[in-house]
Amino acid sequence: MKRIAIGQAGGPTAVINTSLAGFVENLPEDVQLYTVENGYEGLAESKLQRADEKRIEEILAARYDSGAFLGSGRYEFTEDKIIQAVKNLKAFGIDSLAFIGGNGTMAALEKMEEEARAEGMSLQVIGIPKTVDNDLGMTDHAPGFGSAARYAAYSVRDISRDLRSMRNFERVRILETMGRNAGWLAAAAGALVEEEACILCLPEQPVSLRSMTDEVGERLKGQETLVVVVSEGVEWDGESQISQATIGGRVVLGGAAARLQEALSARLGIFVRSENLGMNQRALSLAVSDTDRREAYLVGEKAARLLAEGVSRKMVCIERKPDIRYNVHIGSCDLQKVKDAGERIMPQEFIQDRQRFYEWLRPLI
Amino acid sequence: MKRIAIGQAGGPTAVINTSLAGFVENLPEDVQLYTVENGYEGLAESKLQRADEKRIEEILAARYDSGAFLGSGRYEFTEDKIIQAVKNLKAFGIDSLAFIGGNGTMAALEKMEEEARAEGMSLQVIGIPKTVDNDLGMTDHAPGFGSAARYAAYSVRDISRDLRSMRNFERVRILETMGRNAGWLAAAAGALVEEEACILCLPEQPVSLRSMTDEVGERLKGQETLVVVVSEGVEWDGESQISQATIGGRVVLGGAAARLQEALSARLGIFVRSENLGMNQRALSLAVSDTDRREAYLVGEKAARLLAEGVSRKMVCIERKPDIRYNVHIGSCDLQKVKDAGERIMPQEFIQDRQRFYEWLRPLI
Repeated sequence: MKRIAIGQAGGPTAVINTSLAGFVENLPEDVQLYTVENGYEGLAESKLQRADEKRIEEILAARYDSGAFLGSGRYEFTEDKIIQAVKNLKAFGIDSLAFIGGNGTMAALEKMEEEARAEGMSLQVIGIPKTVDNDLGMTDHAPGFGSAARYAAYSVRDISRDLRSMRNFERVRILETMGRNAGWLAAAAGALVEEEACILCLPEQPVSLRSMTDEVGERLKGQETLVVVVSEGVEWDGESQISQATIGGRVVLGGAAARLQEALSARLGIFVRSENLGMNQRALSLAVSDTDRREAYLVGEKAARLLAEGVSRKMVCIERKPDIRYNVHIGSCDLQKVKDAGERIMPQEFIQDRQRFYEWLRPLI
Repeated sequence: MKRIAIGQAGGPTAVINTSLAGFVENLPEDVQLYTVENGYEGLAESKLQRADEKRIEEILAARYDSGAFLGSGRYEFTEDKIIQAVKNLKAFGIDSLAFIGGNGTMAALEKMEEEARAEGMSLQVIGIPKTVDNDLGMTDHAPGFGSAARYAAYSVRDISRDLRSMRNFERVRILETMGRNAGWLAAAAGALVEEEACILCLPEQPVSLRSMTDEVGERLKGQETLVVVVSEGVEWDGESQISQATIGGRVVLGGAAARLQEALSARLGIFVRSENLGMNQRALSLAVSDTDRREAYLVGEKAARLLAEGVSRKMVCIERKPDIRYNVHIGSCDLQKVKDAGERIMPQEFIQDRQRFYEWLRPLI
């Protein structure tokens, strides 16, 4: 009986367990499923578990839960660890490996497949896309992003309205979003307010504290209140990104909004609040988008079908059809191409024309 | 024709405009409505506006919007300003004044009524309760609290699940809630997780950084992950509350979680993230509770009826009936009694017995 392993890697999304359920629920009857605990760590340290009926029921019951049900986490998946991972998969007799993750995961799957081949073992690998940052190439967008974008967009709209009503007390609020080196989420945050109601600071564009405080000061001459959205990945004045910590080689970004808040308070002499939209961007179940939920399931399902078809070295992807209504095809592409595409930042056409970006975004949130 | 003025004061809630709609929609036909801009400021600085049909339509259209539609804000409503406010109301020929607010608003209404009486003018006043902090006496709970509590409770549940799946990377997260001097919101934040999954730090209880870091260290020996909820109003080691700023005599609390985060990182030598649940507690429309929405409307409606009945110096209140199912009566109580009750903190029976508190809370979220 074919042995199939499934794992989840990296930061969770609010719909990552829906992809897991989509995968598990659509596997052929005659396979034995194994689950990998804590992502790459589970591969490298041989934490694989044979999934019996009870376990499968638990997985399916968690389909609407936030967090990665199998355990995900961060782990430096070095060359040595990858070699060990392949040995472990071999020891468990695993024929096929599917992983839900982002850029790092797609690259890791490719490497494991190569390593297995070098060892004379055949390992079928399929990647299932997931990222709130939307920085994955070769797919129109990745599951997880729509819900994060929805949370950010509603937050900015509702916090703007709250701010407007407090205009005799405070006039500027700064909100920090996730996104790493890409501005997708920060840009999405402005989707439900009028363009002049918020300034967006994206990592794709040079930003300086001086010009931003100038701009805020200028805007406040003509309008009562203003929200500034700051992506965690911006580099103020071309200096490096601001981080909270570096753990196991992983930089945890955070603090870009607080830096602007200090500068604005000092420069304009007014009370300015800065807030981080925080973990809820990837976790809040109340904010999940219907489209995102549905597509998260479909990419999991598609991965199961690809495995059954004997396809390997592919990532499931979402292809948007040029249709008047929102219409997508769930397809697949080479892992190699995902790797070659690299970290996907916002294209200039979206940065230059916010409304065009919001037309693209609207069906997702 | 009777002239009725309505205003909104203090920090908004996600349902404050529903109360406004409930009030406006249920006024008698033969009255003229005036709206007060920016709360007390509008009273003191005579920013009253006669509401024509178009304005009333706008108010009703905003019923689901966050923020206070009329403008609310902060304003030091001193004795002098109150005297001025009464003069302004007289100049506009206002017979009746309804205000949506918290403790400060109820006290201000009482004072304005007294001042008017001293001036030989009759001013009918009715208070409509509103606070995310739930620190208003003489009512089972106040509209706005249920939605804020729902947001906090889902946040803690979903962020806990996210944290659990990241256990090889981080094991503790600290989340700060609003609440001022009362722990209602911080306690509510734990409603959807198992009791051992989170520690609650409430202003009603003495807390020390030393004992809290001890407790967290101890707990982490027996469990993988832990969330600590910190009310913005806690006084670490009996020192004063931590504030971001003081503006116009108003202290803006914030930073209690960050203080604990520093202490924990230093003491345990681990990566600890702290986040403020922020403005979304009072703003996020995605988190609004159905019960809260319904009751927000009903208290507005009740205020309109009380005005029609000629009642004065009352606050609308929510009385919970001792029924198996959740059942409330929308009543009224003397403003004087609200003032005498003072800032309402969590009762000991709820602090000592979380499950009892959660039984009380569940219908609200």
